[in-house]
Amino acid sequence: MRQKLFFGGLIVSFALSAIGHFAHWDMTLQFIISAIAVVFVAGFLGKATESVAHYAGQRLGGFLNATFGNAAELIIAIFLVKEGLFDTVKASITGSIIGNLLLVLGLSLLAGGIKFKQQFFNNQLAEHNATLMIMAVIGLFVPAVFVGAEHFTLNKDHFLSITVACILIVSYLLWLVFSMITHKDVLADKEMNADHGEEPAWSKGVSIILLIVATVMVAFVSEWLVHTLDSFSEKFGLSELFVGAFVIAIIGNAAEHSAAVMLAMKNKIGAAIEIAIGSSLQIALFVAPVLILLSTFFGDTMDIIFTPIELTAIGVAVFIAKSVSRDGTTNWYEGFLLLMVYVILGVAFYLV
Amino acid sequence: MRQKLFFGGLIVSFALSAIGHFAHWDMTLQFIISAIAVVFVAGFLGKATESVAHYAGQRLGGFLNATFGNAAELIIAIFLVKEGLFDTVKASITGSIIGNLLLVLGLSLLAGGIKFKQQFFNNQLAEHNATLMIMAVIGLFVPAVFVGAEHFTLNKDHFLSITVACILIVSYLLWLVFSMITHKDVLADKEMNADHGEEPAWSKGVSIILLIVATVMVAFVSEWLVHTLDSFSEKFGLSELFVGAFVIAIIGNAAEHSAAVMLAMKNKIGAAIEIAIGSSLQIALFVAPVLILLSTFFGDTMDIIFTPIELTAIGVAVFIAKSVSRDGTTNWYEGFLLLMVYVILGVAFYLV
Amino acid sequence: MRQKLFFGGLIVSFALSAIGHFAHWDMTLQFIISAIAVVFVAGFLGKATESVAHYAGQRLGGFLNATFGNAAELIIAIFLVKEGLFDTVKASITGSIIGNLLLVLGLSLLAGGIKFKQQFFNNQLAEHNATLMIMAVIGLFVPAVFVGAEHFTLNKDHFLSITVACILIVSYLLWLVFSMITHKDVLADKEMNADHGEEPAWSKGVSIILLIVATVMVAFVSEWLVHTLDSFSEKFGLSELFVGAFVIAIIGNAAEHSAAVMLAMKNKIGAAIEIAIGSSLQIALFVAPVLILLSTFFGDTMDIIFTPIELTAIGVAVFIAKSVSRDGTTNWYEGFLLLMVYVILGVAFYLV
Repeated sequence: MRQKLFFGGLIVSFALSAIGHFAHWDMTLQFIISAIAVVFVAGFLGKATESVAHYAGQRLGGFLNATFGNAAELIIAIFLVKEGLFDTVKASITGSIIGNLLLVLGLSLLAGGIKFKQQFFNNQLAEHNATLMIMAVIGLFVPAVFVGAEHFTLNKDHFLSITVACILIVSYLLWLVFSMITHKDVLADKEMNADHGEEPAWSKGVSIILLIVATVMVAFVSEWLVHTLDSFSEKFGLSELFVGAFVIAIIGNAAEHSAAVMLAMKNKIGAAIEIAIGSSLQIALFVAPVLILLSTFFGDTMDIIFTPIELTAIGVAVFIAKSVSRDGTTNWYEGFLLLMVYVILGVAFYLV
Repeated sequence: MRQKLFFGGLIVSFALSAIGHFAHWDMTLQFIISAIAVVFVAGFLGKATESVAHYAGQRLGGFLNATFGNAAELIIAIFLVKEGLFDTVKASITGSIIGNLLLVLGLSLLAGGIKFKQQFFNNQLAEHNATLMIMAVIGLFVPAVFVGAEHFTLNKDHFLSITVACILIVSYLLWLVFSMITHKDVLADKEMNADHGEEPAWSKGVSIILLIVATVMVAFVSEWLVHTLDSFSEKFGLSELFVGAFVIAIIGNAAEHSAAVMLAMKNKIGAAIEIAIGSSLQIALFVAPVLILLSTFFGDTMDIIFTPIELTAIGVAVFIAKSVSRDGTTNWYEGFLLLMVYVILGVAFYLV
Repeated sequence: MRQKLFFGGLIVSFALSAIGHFAHWDMTLQFIISAIAVVFVAGFLGKATESVAHYAGQRLGGFLNATFGNAAELIIAIFLVKEGLFDTVKASITGSIIGNLLLVLGLSLLAGGIKFKQQFFNNQLAEHNATLMIMAVIGLFVPAVFVGAEHFTLNKDHFLSITVACILIVSYLLWLVFSMITHKDVLADKEMNADHGEEPAWSKGVSIILLIVATVMVAFVSEWLVHTLDSFSEKFGLSELFVGAFVIAIIGNAAEHSAAVMLAMKNKIGAAIEIAIGSSLQIALFVAPVLILLSTFFGDTMDIIFTPIELTAIGVAVFIAKSVSRDGTTNWYEGFLLLMVYVILGVAFYLV
């Protein structure tokens, strides 16, 4: 029954946003419809990924989930890069990182912590996540300081940006090797390995086809949504920055939100944390650098220099998330604090 | 005998500073007398609070101690806010935070560490204290960066300040709920629970009356002290900043100093840390935001924007205190390092 | 056999660089020869120190190793201070700190981690190292912020610099007292104490004489090398900053590099970490402040104000090294991340 409702919503919202786009409906209406459609197709992509993950094994599944989980954001961002809207791209990267670290993680810890007094997860994974978050901050922070303080030429700026992007990508890929191959037992969560699974609804072949279909749908809806943003922001007096960092990020992460909260409430806090922190690490260490490399192919290099307030937001989110997660235990109050930091940043960005 | 001396000193110093104030004695003399009186009335307030805490139970006692322990600072600051001396208020908030984290904590660890090779306290409390310190830094840091980098109008500045103030207050109140109700067992210090107590000198009723009397006395003496500061600073060539951040803060924290050091030397390092770190958290998460809300009632909103050097001092104090306390063990060298950081900041502020 | 080759190389390279210097050979040739000679004499100094350490006991040996291990850097820096090249001195201090924390530590963890899945060392030492690293960052950071934000006069700048320098030196000396006398058992590494030692090649008396000879040789070669730097940098278009922070630092730390990597591959990761982190702490808390005090005797005070990019490099190195080492376990991926941060900083400095 719920399945049917979901697929009904998926098809209707996708069809309506397609029609709205090509029939040039009112921009605000288009925005609302495609925002709803993004939530549905992201959810569909999530289900398809999970199903493929079931057949491919848990670790490889983790990799696929990580890769496809951010597909919506990546595809939206590629369209924005192609149109040269670099500032919006960086705002949405910022929003995605802090959205995962503060909103998704905060809601998960709060929801899980209300049901369970304390929740536990692998200590060593927490330590490595913290180190990787610092790596991500360094990768974004060092170029900003050097380019700003030393007045680099555009050439030097681009050279540094591309170098750092390559280093971050290599670091991320080796992290996958480390965490899934050479040290997967060290980082494993005892509870997680046990009973991960309801039977998936689809066979192996169907799952793969649906994964491809879902990715294509995400690509289309994302492009339609991007087209409406300008007039939408103007109408409601929202800054490009706020739309990129909060509106798009919340929409794009809808699938992760619900999955992580659900897992936390089943006391699988380790899995919830892997979605929230893992997703933000993937954005910072993989998606953002890939966008920089892609931009050079489109002809105009996007540098890796974020604005001071974006760097502040990312730094702040990393430090509180690191502090909350480091000891391997969580509770409702830690979730609450993360949400409060998200609200502070949200208000601050809204006022810009 | 010591009791009698104390109350003698209390009454004499209070009376003299009252007479000095109304008879318009020499300002420097007034300053010295009321500074001495503040030490006595703060000590009196501490004793009364402790006595009430004995009857109210240890946890509620902790709450009362936390609330009344900073009463002197709060009342001094309210007078300063009323007179519109916002810069001095912020300097004294800064001084209070770093004074507790570096001077009080440093002296406690040093004194305790000379007597005992290693002292231990609850690990989880240390982790939560660290997270709350980061929350406090975020609350002060984010508005400063946004208002500075984006040139906010006064309206936006005030809106952001009030929002952050409300969030910090709610976070502090829920921390009390978390640490005293829902998770009080998780954060408890084994040794602390055991033999906390000498019998208090007063009955329940007397204790409450004395608490009220002490608070009123603190209020009066504080106002008299504030009136002398301007001419005092001028005479000795001290900057308003140095007076606010070091002179007032050391005077206002006199009671906490002696209590924490005494507890550390009795090997109750957990209790000493709760006074030192707990007090600084209360200043940052409760006293400072309350002052901002109060200022709006007095007509002229005080924003939450601290100067770069104040933010540096607070950030530096938080990072070293966090690092020292995080592992749940302490020793003399860690206390020494905290004191050295306090000296560095003291010299730097003196030179401004 | 290997011994003979080493001493052959030592004598030949030393002799050639002496001849080159006094016969005014081509500057580039001089640079290359004396760079090679520095590697040999640093290695010789390392051997002599180790041998003396064998007779003096492990702890005192640690102290001697720490003191003589940085002798090359100290002596190079003294010549630079005498010539008033303060910027190069600070660049080389920066380079030495980040070289030890990122390159030496990174190579050690990577080499050790490839051979052993996980390596373990004393937890409490890791915590104290982290706190000392923060102390070092505070000592360099606070003066920079205050002098920058408050436009201190030169007098105030020098007063603050000398005060902070004295505090750092006292902190370092007391750290030796703490770690080698009062708390040496708490910080001891279980494995390390066991089988530290091959028999040294020399007797007690010979070891001491060789130590003195080696130190004198380092002093000479260092001065010859410094004389060639200007023309070398010009020829290859390298900035003074890059030469100081990377070229000199890598040469001057050659002995530490090989010793630490060797120890890591013998699974003595605790000793390797003590060389890498211990050496960088000694530079920040002892060598740098001593240079400041020395400069006042030479007539022109060198202040403690590092540039924003130098502070960024040091801060970044400290934060990632702290995060990697904090939990007392290491692996190849953590080593790899440290090296990547070193590359990022290297590229950024090269572009300046």
